[in-house]
Amino acid sequence: MDRQQRRRQWERTVEPGLLAASLLFLAAYSVRVLVPDLSPGWHAFWAIVTAVTWAVFIADYLARLLLSDHRLRFARRHWLDLMVTVLPLLRPLRMIDTYDRVQRRRDHPRLALEARVMTYAGLTALLLGYAAALAVYHDEHHAPHADIRTFGDSVWWAASTLTTTGYGDATPVTPRGRVVGVGLMFVGVALVGAVVGSFSSWLVRRFRQDGEA
Amino acid sequence: MDRQQRRRQWERTVEPGLLAASLLFLAAYSVRVLVPDLSPGWHAFWAIVTAVTWAVFIADYLARLLLSDHRLRFARRHWLDLMVTVLPLLRPLRMIDTYDRVQRRRDHPRLALEARVMTYAGLTALLLGYAAALAVYHDEHHAPHADIRTFGDSVWWAASTLTTTGYGDATPVTPRGRVVGVGLMFVGVALVGAVVGSFSSWLVRRFRQDGEA
Amino acid sequence: MDRQQRRRQWERTVEPGLLAASLLFLAAYSVRVLVPDLSPGWHAFWAIVTAVTWAVFIADYLARLLLSDHRLRFARRHWLDLMVTVLPLLRPLRMIDTYDRVQRRRDHPRLALEARVMTYAGLTALLLGYAAALAVYHDEHHAPHADIRTFGDSVWWAASTLTTTGYGDATPVTPRGRVVGVGLMFVGVALVGAVVGSFSSWLVRRFRQDGEA
Amino acid sequence: MDRQQRRRQWERTVEPGLLAASLLFLAAYSVRVLVPDLSPGWHAFWAIVTAVTWAVFIADYLARLLLSDHRLRFARRHWLDLMVTVLPLLRPLRMIDTYDRVQRRRDHPRLALEARVMTYAGLTALLLGYAAALAVYHDEHHAPHADIRTFGDSVWWAASTLTTTGYGDATPVTPRGRVVGVGLMFVGVALVGAVVGSFSSWLVRRFRQDGEA
Repeated sequence: MDRQQRRRQWERTVEPGLLAASLLFLAAYSVRVLVPDLSPGWHAFWAIVTAVTWAVFIADYLARLLLSDHRLRFARRHWLDLMVTVLPLLRPLRMIDTYDRVQRRRDHPRLALEARVMTYAGLTALLLGYAAALAVYHDEHHAPHADIRTFGDSVWWAASTLTTTGYGDATPVTPRGRVVGVGLMFVGVALVGAVVGSFSSWLVRRFRQDGEA
Repeated sequence: MDRQQRRRQWERTVEPGLLAASLLFLAAYSVRVLVPDLSPGWHAFWAIVTAVTWAVFIADYLARLLLSDHRLRFARRHWLDLMVTVLPLLRPLRMIDTYDRVQRRRDHPRLALEARVMTYAGLTALLLGYAAALAVYHDEHHAPHADIRTFGDSVWWAASTLTTTGYGDATPVTPRGRVVGVGLMFVGVALVGAVVGSFSSWLVRRFRQDGEA
Repeated sequence: MDRQQRRRQWERTVEPGLLAASLLFLAAYSVRVLVPDLSPGWHAFWAIVTAVTWAVFIADYLARLLLSDHRLRFARRHWLDLMVTVLPLLRPLRMIDTYDRVQRRRDHPRLALEARVMTYAGLTALLLGYAAALAVYHDEHHAPHADIRTFGDSVWWAASTLTTTGYGDATPVTPRGRVVGVGLMFVGVALVGAVVGSFSSWLVRRFRQDGEA
Repeated sequence: MDRQQRRRQWERTVEPGLLAASLLFLAAYSVRVLVPDLSPGWHAFWAIVTAVTWAVFIADYLARLLLSDHRLRFARRHWLDLMVTVLPLLRPLRMIDTYDRVQRRRDHPRLALEARVMTYAGLTALLLGYAAALAVYHDEHHAPHADIRTFGDSVWWAASTLTTTGYGDATPVTPRGRVVGVGLMFVGVALVGAVVGSFSSWLVRRFRQDGEA
């Protein structure tokens, strides 16, 4: 019991730090992918930022594991946390806790249920889409016979994948790019589906109120 | 309190004028995009229509801002109104108020809830799709290596984007055209999702009534 | 009141005949599109079938119009019936009444609500998809630069359109083919959305029962 | 009554064996499609595995048919079972019973309703997608003018089909491959729709609890 409480407290304490670390990690990854000819000094700087933030994620996971009463059960139940620690670009998937705590801390009335679901699912989809566009651009833009040559192409591809439009005018051709693409399709279809569903029920509720007023 | 009431009254009074101005703006934009060799007189005429209607939108926004008790809060809460004032082609997104007031003024019984959601979301999607088709045709049809050469191509692209079909046989290639495309994908997936959801629940309700009758 | 009742009775009486006429019309259209070199005798036969069934649809619409108390209101409320009379390939859209009456006539317990919605929306989508595949094949297969050369291509295109997959490996290029395509996209997205929604809620209900049992 | 009970008992008894047989069948099919130059010994081995597992499926169907009081009604009601016996690659469609019984046998509290629907529909979609990728690769990779040349291409096509993204950069061109594709589109759109719906309602429920806590 005692340990469980200490874990909860730990999670509450490190939350803002982890959020900052996630954004730093994404910034470092963005710079390294999008700016090809960094000066050696800057290159080292961003490499260190990547290493430090990654170490922070691993330390956090281990701390929570050690503060659990049943470590095996913790590992099994929080498999998503482990995955997100190994592949920090997937961090937005865990944002649901952060997002909720940030909302809770503020005093003024919170958003309506649908607006919260839309904000959470929409932000997560946007962050994952951006991360996927970076990863695919990184893998593809030097590949032979690639369609995706600029970061703009990659963002265009990511948007058409997230919304399941799928034009197919620019698609990944390398195995790694396609693995990222398959992941984005499945995660995107679920998150964007949640946004659409919430928007739809918000619209229905709004029209219903008008009808009663 | 007094001011708030005066703002409400203002909104009610200018509503029909704003709707007319929106349609005029769209008409002017359509003519300028679709008719390339206007005579100088007509060109000036439609340029003036564009300028006047745009000025009307800006005047309306400023009037409502000035009639608010808390101007900063008004600006923050009605950020969509500001966006729609800057980019009048997005006006259909604000049609929800107009649509509702028009419905309210009529005496005979209003449409069922689902029909109202379908009509609103469907009309908005159609108008936005038409505006997007115009904007993309405008940007693309002279671009090198463009797929979208005629307005028909552009409408075909807009329809396949709104329904998330996304054939990809004709897609924008210019940065501006693609920005419009990304916007249409996200707005379209939400609005068309709302139409589909309402149609679906209307169908279920209809079959349920049959079962009971 | 009297007239209204007579209209209802008329509708109930001619229902089976109209269903048969719809299927005959579709059969005649299929033969004329898919069998290019009919002997003159057969050609005349199927042309007569088309003409007679079409005349039946027009006669039915006029009869119902005449049997209405308020003809203008009938025409305005049943605009879909008029459209379906002018374009008989869209008849499946009106199948909802027929389908329901056929169900009602049978003695054994009717299908569950979700199964009825799925059957109706699914059948309608299939029939419309088939009609659209025929119409597009008819318009496209002789067009220059067409992708859709065989009826198989056209069915493949219709399936990928109905499910909003939209590969784009074969798409209509003629204006008429594209108009049919836009119609199929919008009708398809609504009907297939209804099938998916009903399947989804059937699945949830089935798992809920298992949980309680 | 007695017979009905014996059928139920039979179904419960053979369930684990059938599940194992299904996985064996899929393994045998995978090896035969993906490893083109098996040694004659291994070739014979996997051919025998295929034949034996198929025989098991047929024997199970016949046993259940014979143990039914009303055989014609059994055949009519369980038409999906017959289809699945003839085309064992579609077996995952029948997994709903197996899945539920496995869940029921375990002691610890079962998953939440949404999680169960997501797990069932998601697993079924994945297995069918894998089977479809194998079948399409088998039919296509030697076809002239084929886009799908490697198993990787086929998996990429199956993922973009299941999520209705439909890039169209690699699509089946043979009639048999397209029949598989049409099946995957329709089954995929329904199953993935169910996953998305369940994820959406799980997310809404989770946010609602947070709001109340």
